[in-house]
Amino acid sequence: MTDRVEIVEVGLRDGLQNEATPVPASLRAQWFNALSAAGLNRIEAGSFVSPKWVPQMADTETVIQAIDHRPGLSVEALIPNQKGLEAAMGVNGIDRLAFFTAASDAFTRKNINCTVEESLERFAPLMKQAKDAGYGVRGYVSCIVGCPYAGPIEPAAVARVCEKMMAMGVDELSLGDTIGVARPLEINRVLDAVLPAVPVERLALHCHDTYGQALANVLTGLERGVRTFDSAVAGLGGCPYAKGASGNLATEDLLYLLDGQGLETGVSLDRVFEVGQEVCSHLGKESPSRVAQALGARSQTA
Amino acid sequence: MTDRVEIVEVGLRDGLQNEATPVPASLRAQWFNALSAAGLNRIEAGSFVSPKWVPQMADTETVIQAIDHRPGLSVEALIPNQKGLEAAMGVNGIDRLAFFTAASDAFTRKNINCTVEESLERFAPLMKQAKDAGYGVRGYVSCIVGCPYAGPIEPAAVARVCEKMMAMGVDELSLGDTIGVARPLEINRVLDAVLPAVPVERLALHCHDTYGQALANVLTGLERGVRTFDSAVAGLGGCPYAKGASGNLATEDLLYLLDGQGLETGVSLDRVFEVGQEVCSHLGKESPSRVAQALGARSQTA
Repeated sequence: MTDRVEIVEVGLRDGLQNEATPVPASLRAQWFNALSAAGLNRIEAGSFVSPKWVPQMADTETVIQAIDHRPGLSVEALIPNQKGLEAAMGVNGIDRLAFFTAASDAFTRKNINCTVEESLERFAPLMKQAKDAGYGVRGYVSCIVGCPYAGPIEPAAVARVCEKMMAMGVDELSLGDTIGVARPLEINRVLDAVLPAVPVERLALHCHDTYGQALANVLTGLERGVRTFDSAVAGLGGCPYAKGASGNLATEDLLYLLDGQGLETGVSLDRVFEVGQEVCSHLGKESPSRVAQALGARSQTA
Repeated sequence: MTDRVEIVEVGLRDGLQNEATPVPASLRAQWFNALSAAGLNRIEAGSFVSPKWVPQMADTETVIQAIDHRPGLSVEALIPNQKGLEAAMGVNGIDRLAFFTAASDAFTRKNINCTVEESLERFAPLMKQAKDAGYGVRGYVSCIVGCPYAGPIEPAAVARVCEKMMAMGVDELSLGDTIGVARPLEINRVLDAVLPAVPVERLALHCHDTYGQALANVLTGLERGVRTFDSAVAGLGGCPYAKGASGNLATEDLLYLLDGQGLETGVSLDRVFEVGQEVCSHLGKESPSRVAQALGARSQTA
């Protein structure tokens, strides 16, 4: 196993889309560039969703136009539909496009108004189009352990979706514990079911910290050979299914773990922490990141 | 390996001694009994330290006198010195006594005004006296990975203290990551150094969650065969070395992990959560436990 870990920074997309206050595109671009300067190589810039539905993601093309491109940087965006794909393809400088489904029909019905199977049918031609145009293609599979509407999810259901998305040609699958209920044994069971169908180097783990289990789950992923993890600066996003609870795993907390494990990320924790403090200050909230809290308290004490 | 895990609830001692507001003994006793009723079998009732130095631990004997004894319950208390030992021995109903040192001279100097070696010399006769009187004896070893004054600690230094305490006759050693800086690799290194000298069934792991790593470290302990873990209801205590940061691992978060791992504790998470909510309400603070936040948010949403 390589000792290099790739972090996919999802704060400006999965994070901000769940924050109450929309952030102007110019500021999102500034944060993007600061995160890139901190060493993050893969950063989601936003989502090409209608601003009527998700005002927080408005003007994603403006964000992307203001990005300082540099070698090794992958600019990524979420595509909900044909219209979004066309908008994304009209903007220069995007490297990877991501498509979203789940392992739970109840969840896709609530979120994208169709079954999992129907979502795959819808996305298949879009993915092909994206691949043909040279984009990297990421597939998100949400609710890999639990669904806010349907409860526990069978690992076999996750494996079925993964197999189908692999057949559709995704380069990478991001397995999401969307409501942060999973524990290591459950992550292991999902990986038992998925790994026969998906090479581990094409898997990412997307943990939410709602029940504080994210890093234990990351550790489990590491032990199974996963080397790509999603996280959000300052744990942006909260949990839309339990207002007031934590959401995305904070990039600061993930980095602190990875640094301690002797794994190479190329990312500066101190610089990500600084961006996170700025983001929280703008949003008028305290960072839910334990590492940010500890570093902040230490600097006040010192 | 057994699939049973023992939790040592330290909130009423290690937790409350670091909370600003002293809690009356009658209320501490009520919380003790509620935690016992939730299924916790090992609970620290307090510390026999001078109330001049630690007013939060005043009247620990009153707490102990109000405990509802039941089969299987172990009432535990911390002993700082000869005077404390005599006071503890004058109270009926204590099962285990705990003695405190560290793997860092800088830490013992600041806390108990002597070197580690001197602390062991001081405690040796007290431990013997406690054992002769029939008490179980626990030894705390603090700063197993990092010290707030001396920085990183060598695993060999931890092993040396553990060997000496074993020779002094302790029944159990609690290895404490007192400032919550440890990560799984570091915990593994400490266990590599300590396990040749201490049977794993006589080890407990005492993780703080200051940097959010506590559960990942617990998982590592579990993988190495540790089956006793310290935690504090509602993560009581904060971090005295970084005001505003998290402190003790919350019992709620630990239970959620252990339940998911299929490990038996005999403890009701729901009931511990209820006690934690009451404790936080009394102290006028929000619980730092992610699980408590998620359960609280869920019940408000439902």
